[in-house]
Amino acid sequence: MTFYWNKPVPMTAPNSAPLEKPRFTVDLDKVRRNIAGMADKFQRHGVGFRPHFKTHQCAAIGELFRKVGVSAITVSSLDMASYFHQSGWDDITLAVPVNPGQLEAINRLAGQTRLNLLVDSLETTRQLNDSLDVSCPVWVKVDVGYGRVGIRWHKQQAILDLIEWIDKAPRLELLGLLTHSGHSYGCRGRGEVAACFEEGRLRMLELKRFLQDHGHEVKVSMGDTPSASLAEQFEGVDEMRPGNFVFYDLFQSQVGSCGLEDIAVATACPVIGKYEDELKLVVYGGSIHLSKDSVHIDGERLFGQLALPDGKGWAIVPLQEGKLTSCCQEVSKIQVSPGVFEQIELGQCVYILPVHSCLAADLYPRYATLDGDLLERFRLFS
Amino acid sequence: MTFYWNKPVPMTAPNSAPLEKPRFTVDLDKVRRNIAGMADKFQRHGVGFRPHFKTHQCAAIGELFRKVGVSAITVSSLDMASYFHQSGWDDITLAVPVNPGQLEAINRLAGQTRLNLLVDSLETTRQLNDSLDVSCPVWVKVDVGYGRVGIRWHKQQAILDLIEWIDKAPRLELLGLLTHSGHSYGCRGRGEVAACFEEGRLRMLELKRFLQDHGHEVKVSMGDTPSASLAEQFEGVDEMRPGNFVFYDLFQSQVGSCGLEDIAVATACPVIGKYEDELKLVVYGGSIHLSKDSVHIDGERLFGQLALPDGKGWAIVPLQEGKLTSCCQEVSKIQVSPGVFEQIELGQCVYILPVHSCLAADLYPRYATLDGDLLERFRLFS
Repeated sequence: MTFYWNKPVPMTAPNSAPLEKPRFTVDLDKVRRNIAGMADKFQRHGVGFRPHFKTHQCAAIGELFRKVGVSAITVSSLDMASYFHQSGWDDITLAVPVNPGQLEAINRLAGQTRLNLLVDSLETTRQLNDSLDVSCPVWVKVDVGYGRVGIRWHKQQAILDLIEWIDKAPRLELLGLLTHSGHSYGCRGRGEVAACFEEGRLRMLELKRFLQDHGHEVKVSMGDTPSASLAEQFEGVDEMRPGNFVFYDLFQSQVGSCGLEDIAVATACPVIGKYEDELKLVVYGGSIHLSKDSVHIDGERLFGQLALPDGKGWAIVPLQEGKLTSCCQEVSKIQVSPGVFEQIELGQCVYILPVHSCLAADLYPRYATLDGDLLERFRLFS
Repeated sequence: MTFYWNKPVPMTAPNSAPLEKPRFTVDLDKVRRNIAGMADKFQRHGVGFRPHFKTHQCAAIGELFRKVGVSAITVSSLDMASYFHQSGWDDITLAVPVNPGQLEAINRLAGQTRLNLLVDSLETTRQLNDSLDVSCPVWVKVDVGYGRVGIRWHKQQAILDLIEWIDKAPRLELLGLLTHSGHSYGCRGRGEVAACFEEGRLRMLELKRFLQDHGHEVKVSMGDTPSASLAEQFEGVDEMRPGNFVFYDLFQSQVGSCGLEDIAVATACPVIGKYEDELKLVVYGGSIHLSKDSVHIDGERLFGQLALPDGKGWAIVPLQEGKLTSCCQEVSKIQVSPGVFEQIELGQCVYILPVHSCLAADLYPRYATLDGDLLERFRLFS
C-alpha cells in the first residue's frame, strides 16, 4: 500500500489543486480489479454472479461488469431497474420486496425486460399476480438471521404455503429462495464472516430440501459483500449478489472484506481551515458530501479516512496521523499529526475515503475519474 | 399534540394511499408557525434575525420569511448564496470560511449582491482581498467553545491582528465577530442550553470590549437553533442566525428546543412488509431517503419517529409504540405495538419524522406540501 510518507506529495500536482466543491472520485483501475477478483472467484466456485448495482448506480461502471461476462444484475429500486434496462441490461433482480404502490410501474417494466421480483407475503403476492399482464419470475425472500425483511427460515410451512401459491399463480414463475445475510456486517475477520454465511447457507439448503420433499425444485440466491469476499464454501448456492465490493469502503476494511488499498472511491475536499495549536484541519465536505455514516475504531467515532493527493490518485494517511472526528452539514474536522499538518496547505485538496461508499456515492449525480472524466449515474429523484 | 389514538385513522384517507416512492413532506402551517415564533422572539429582544437557509434550501419557503419582515439571510455554500440571490435576496452571509478554491466565483457573486464572508486566517484573508474587484464585507469567525472552525476566543492578539489587517485592506469591509455555539447540540433542556449560550455570549462580548479598547468597533453575530429557541439573554448580540427551527426534528426535540408537534417535516414511506410474529413493519425508505443520522433515546439508537396519516397530515406514534431501530440503504425496520401493527396495512403510507431535518431535506430535489404541491429547492450538484 502507498502510504503518504512513501511518496512526498508535490504540491504542484494538478491533483492537489484548489477545488470549488467536493468531488466524488473513482479510481477505475481499482474498480476493475475489484470486479475481476469477484468474477474470478465465483467462476472458480461455479457459482452464478449477479452483482448488486446499488453501490455504483452507474451505467459506465456497469459496462466494466459486462466485460468480465456478467449478464444478470441486482438493483434496489424499480427506478434503478428501469435505468439499467435502458442501458442494455435484460435480466434484473429488484432485491427489495414488491411495494404494492408500484404495481402498475412493475407491470410496465416487466413487459419490457426480465424483471425478477421478491415477495414475502401472500397478500402482496396475490396483488402482484392480479396486476400483471405478463408472467414474472419471483423469489421468496427468506430471513436467515439478519432480521430485516423476509420470512424467517424456520417458518417452513409458511414458506411452503407461499411457494405453492406462486406455483399455481398464472402470472408468476417460481425461481426459489433468496436471502441477504446482512448480519455479516457485524462480523470481524474471515472466520466470523464465513461462519455467519455458513449458518445462512445451511439454513437455505435445509429449506430447499424441505421444499424438494414437497415436490418443489428451487434455486438459492445469497448476497452480501463480506461473505462474497471472505467465504469459500458456496456449495448449493446458485448465485451470489454482492454489491459494495465494487468500491469497498472503511466499513468493509473493518470487517476484513478488503484492505484500505482496495477502496476505489474517495471524496476530494478543499482544505479551508488550518489551526496549528490544535493540529486540526477543516475541509469543505460534510455530511451532505460524505454521508453521516460512521465507524468506531479503537473507541473513536470516525467519518472517513484522510488520504493525500499522490500522482493521479491518493495515498492513504494512517489513522494515527489523521482522524476525521467530526462531520457537520458542510464541513468536517480532521485531527492530524504535526507531519501531516505541515504537508498540507490551505486551499489544496485532500481525499476522504468513505465509511460507507453506497451512501457517499448516492449523494452525487456524477463521479469524476482520476483522469477527470465524468460518469453520470442513476438518480432516484431527478 | 395529536397522538395517533386520539383520531382513528380512516384507511380511505387519500393521505394513506399507496406511494411509488418515499416523499419528503412539509407542513407549511407548522413552518409558518416556527418562523413567526422566532421572528417575534427576536423582535421582542431587539436582536437582528438573519435565518440560516441551509435547512430548507427552498426559495418558496424563503418567501415565508420575507412575509415576517426578514431581509437578510445566511447560507452554507456559495452555490446556495447564488440560488437565493437569484430568488431576490440581496444580503447574504456565507457562514463557512472562505474556500480559496472559490475566489473567482466569490468575486463574481460579490459584484452582484451584498455577500458577507467569513475568514479565520490571515492567509485566506489576504488571498480574498487580492482576488476581489469590489469591496466585500467580512466577519472574523470565532470559536467560543464548539471546536470546529474559527479562531479560539482566548487568542485575543491573533484576532486583533486579523481585525487590523482587514481594517487596512482596500477591498474588505470589517463587520465584526461571528460564532456558532454548535456545542449547544450536546445540551439537554433550557438550563443547559442557556448556560452554554451565555458562556459564548460573554466570551464574544469580552472580545468585543478588547477590540474596542484597541479602537475597533465590531458587531456580534451568533447562531444555532437550541440557543435561539431556549435562551432569553441576547444583550450585546447584534444578530442571531438559527436555521434548523424552520423544520425542527427529533434531535431538537431531544435537546428541548421544540416539541414533537413543532416538527414540520416527515418522509412519507410505503409499508412493504408486515411480520406479525415479530411485530415488525418494513417501509420502503432507508438511509438514502431519511439520512443515516440517528439519535439515542433510552439507550436505543433510532433513525426517526413513526407517525400515521391523519387528515392531510400526520399523528405522531409515541416511541413506546413504534421504534425505527434499523435503517439500511433502501428500507427501514420499525418495531411496533400490537395496536399499531393492527392499524397499519401493507401498501399504505406512513410518516417518518426525521432525526436531522437538514440532512433528510437535502436528499430531495423538491418537497411535497400537505396539499400535494411541489416546492423546488436548491441543488448543489445539478
